[in-house]
Amino acid sequence: MNVADLGLPVAVPSTALFTDQYELTMLQAALRSGTAERRSVFEVFTRRLPEGRRYGVVAGTGRVLDAVENFRFDATILGFLRERGILDEPTLEWLGDYRFTGDIWGYPEGEVYFPGSPVMRIEGTFAEAVVLETVILSILNHDSAVAAAASRMAVAAGDRPLMEMGARRTHELAAVAAARSAYVGGFHTTSDLAAGFRYNIPTVGTSAHAFTLLHDSERDAFTAQVDTLGSGTTLLVDTFDVAEAVRTAVEVAGPGLGAVRIDSGDLLLIAHRVRQQLDELGARQTKIVVTSDLDEYAIASLAAAPVDAYGVGTQLVTGSGHPTCSMVYKLVARADGDEPGAPLRPVAKKSMGAKSSVGGRKWAARRLDADGVAEAEVVGTGPVPAELADRQLLVPLVRAGEVVGREPLDAARDRHIAARAGLPLSATQLSRGEAVLPTEYR
Amino acid sequence: MNVADLGLPVAVPSTALFTDQYELTMLQAALRSGTAERRSVFEVFTRRLPEGRRYGVVAGTGRVLDAVENFRFDATILGFLRERGILDEPTLEWLGDYRFTGDIWGYPEGEVYFPGSPVMRIEGTFAEAVVLETVILSILNHDSAVAAAASRMAVAAGDRPLMEMGARRTHELAAVAAARSAYVGGFHTTSDLAAGFRYNIPTVGTSAHAFTLLHDSERDAFTAQVDTLGSGTTLLVDTFDVAEAVRTAVEVAGPGLGAVRIDSGDLLLIAHRVRQQLDELGARQTKIVVTSDLDEYAIASLAAAPVDAYGVGTQLVTGSGHPTCSMVYKLVARADGDEPGAPLRPVAKKSMGAKSSVGGRKWAARRLDADGVAEAEVVGTGPVPAELADRQLLVPLVRAGEVVGREPLDAARDRHIAARAGLPLSATQLSRGEAVLPTEYR
Repeated sequence: MNVADLGLPVAVPSTALFTDQYELTMLQAALRSGTAERRSVFEVFTRRLPEGRRYGVVAGTGRVLDAVENFRFDATILGFLRERGILDEPTLEWLGDYRFTGDIWGYPEGEVYFPGSPVMRIEGTFAEAVVLETVILSILNHDSAVAAAASRMAVAAGDRPLMEMGARRTHELAAVAAARSAYVGGFHTTSDLAAGFRYNIPTVGTSAHAFTLLHDSERDAFTAQVDTLGSGTTLLVDTFDVAEAVRTAVEVAGPGLGAVRIDSGDLLLIAHRVRQQLDELGARQTKIVVTSDLDEYAIASLAAAPVDAYGVGTQLVTGSGHPTCSMVYKLVARADGDEPGAPLRPVAKKSMGAKSSVGGRKWAARRLDADGVAEAEVVGTGPVPAELADRQLLVPLVRAGEVVGREPLDAARDRHIAARAGLPLSATQLSRGEAVLPTEYR
Repeated sequence: MNVADLGLPVAVPSTALFTDQYELTMLQAALRSGTAERRSVFEVFTRRLPEGRRYGVVAGTGRVLDAVENFRFDATILGFLRERGILDEPTLEWLGDYRFTGDIWGYPEGEVYFPGSPVMRIEGTFAEAVVLETVILSILNHDSAVAAAASRMAVAAGDRPLMEMGARRTHELAAVAAARSAYVGGFHTTSDLAAGFRYNIPTVGTSAHAFTLLHDSERDAFTAQVDTLGSGTTLLVDTFDVAEAVRTAVEVAGPGLGAVRIDSGDLLLIAHRVRQQLDELGARQTKIVVTSDLDEYAIASLAAAPVDAYGVGTQLVTGSGHPTCSMVYKLVARADGDEPGAPLRPVAKKSMGAKSSVGGRKWAARRLDADGVAEAEVVGTGPVPAELADRQLLVPLVRAGEVVGREPLDAARDRHIAARAGLPLSATQLSRGEAVLPTEYR
């Protein structure tokens, strides 16, 4: 695929302007000073998890691959940069020929991560790697934040299906990426048609209060819906009186009614009452869907309620209190001088406050205990210890500019379930805590 | 302009799939039941401001107009819907001909709003208006959240310029919209080149730690930067030792050095020290830019520090704790029956918990006290009282399907400054409080 993966229902030719201006001025200065070609290793990592979170979830990797492939400066973009007077002609010429020719390694999508995990490693010349900073961080910071929230919600929901319904609460294109990330994190369906179109995620829908209010009676509305969508549809029963609506719903659709949706009030109480009423009406197979401002805690609190599915919006697409992941893109090693084949030298900003980082081109591995449960995230430079060789986390994503790490979205979703299952059980506690794995540096 | 305003550096043909599936299935049911053509009034409003916030800021209006204009179902999109088996053929045909032919009124962009303010009013047939729900809410909920955070930061910054630098902390296209909203809310520049391209917002940039680390010494890096960007550039001085970096910076660039940037540590303390050092070095005009995890509180706390400009990222693009606005899109009135010219009848969901709404096609006006300061947001149905006639807030945005409310972004930015200035002074307090204006219903 040679189009930018922006979650759009159309191909977009370039991701090159999703870039902070300083990347291009640094490029220009490096071209002029002769350092632009120094082999460099950039690393994406986070210094900490969001407060109280026990693990992070890598998401957006597939979108990064498309973004890198489509990072091209066409004549229109170059014209804009020229007109703004930001860059000189040699730099514009260089950008006109831009193709990433380096290597990218990373945690595969769906994998979990911890503070200091080298989630992605970008290697190439300084010039070709520095310009990718913003677009890579945008994608990983957003998508991983949503996936982490989705994962917690999936834990809370257990076997009950989760529907992503948050498009209206976030930017219209962020919504498409959010639906994708939610799927990676364990959601089953989305209401967002663009996400269905772009990523082939199963789409679902029920009905809104407006539809009931449009009709002269609730019965008219239910009849209209069942007539066109069949009795397997989901009827919204909280526009007026829930008990009356449930009675009407079963009268109209029969006991084969697919589901009823409750979108307000005390969901725990109402779900119990509705379940009892449905059973008494003979609609024992009719499911109950709830959808009112849910987050992982609300979902968990409904575990004992007769609820069959959850629709989640706001808290999912905004990362349940943590809408971004604070991942950074740091130069960790670069050629020690300008001779061809100069060795890599670890570099790092001197620590001031919390903004420390660890230099060097890193590997990472997850060490297991005797029972096969993960016990540490081991991050190191230099040779990988033999006992960790088959537990390495980074996989090749791009080799010499060619994408080699593309995979179906379901592979990422399956991987996340497996990765989470390999963590200590406390990973699935919703209460605030420390990262479930310590990060050890070798 | 007949392209979808997605903040993209390219035209995008359609916004039609930024839609929740239930809108289209409701459409189908309404087409089948004969209620689809009932004249309907939908209203966008929020039941509450984010906790502690004193006012909201309308942003995204211009993007909504483009989204409505480009809400078109082309063959590819119809093919997707057909393949999914979501809709029947008559509905697909209807969508193929879709053009919004109704009216949209709204608070103009940059205006402030309060709980219950009818921020936007969409009037047309049920069918043509119901399908716009998701895309309109996505845009307004996201953009207004960022603008509200920007406005608070602008208040805190006073006369000092604010630079938007948050692209890496949010979805790559949400970032472009965020830069636009930040500008409406009072920011001056952005680092996001796509926002400069798309919205002509002034772009800025400094330098990253990677650039210093790429070179064999800080002096080499500063020299490279000054050589290519001139002495007016901004040098990043906190990679190693700040005092040494400042000395080197002035040696390299001369006392005409444009600015230094501090990105870590105790900004208050360091800014004072750096100012003193710069002055002693004769670089009295060299400015100090700070950029480390700022929010409105951090900005306010630096008011007494010798800081000349703020660069803000994460907290801006994530709405400073409130990444979405909880705006909803509700049917508030519809034709009372199917006769042509049937009068409008107010409708509303029966209140359950906090999800109440007020029916009726509404006007809104801001009442001033004797000193010309706003004292109430008055929202009503029926005729507008004479004394409020010239204080009305809703303006025409779309008339009979034609966009009439397009305006330059600077008009929204100027309007916001004026609107905020018209509020009681307590609006500009950063501390938590109630909405500064009560909403009165007539």
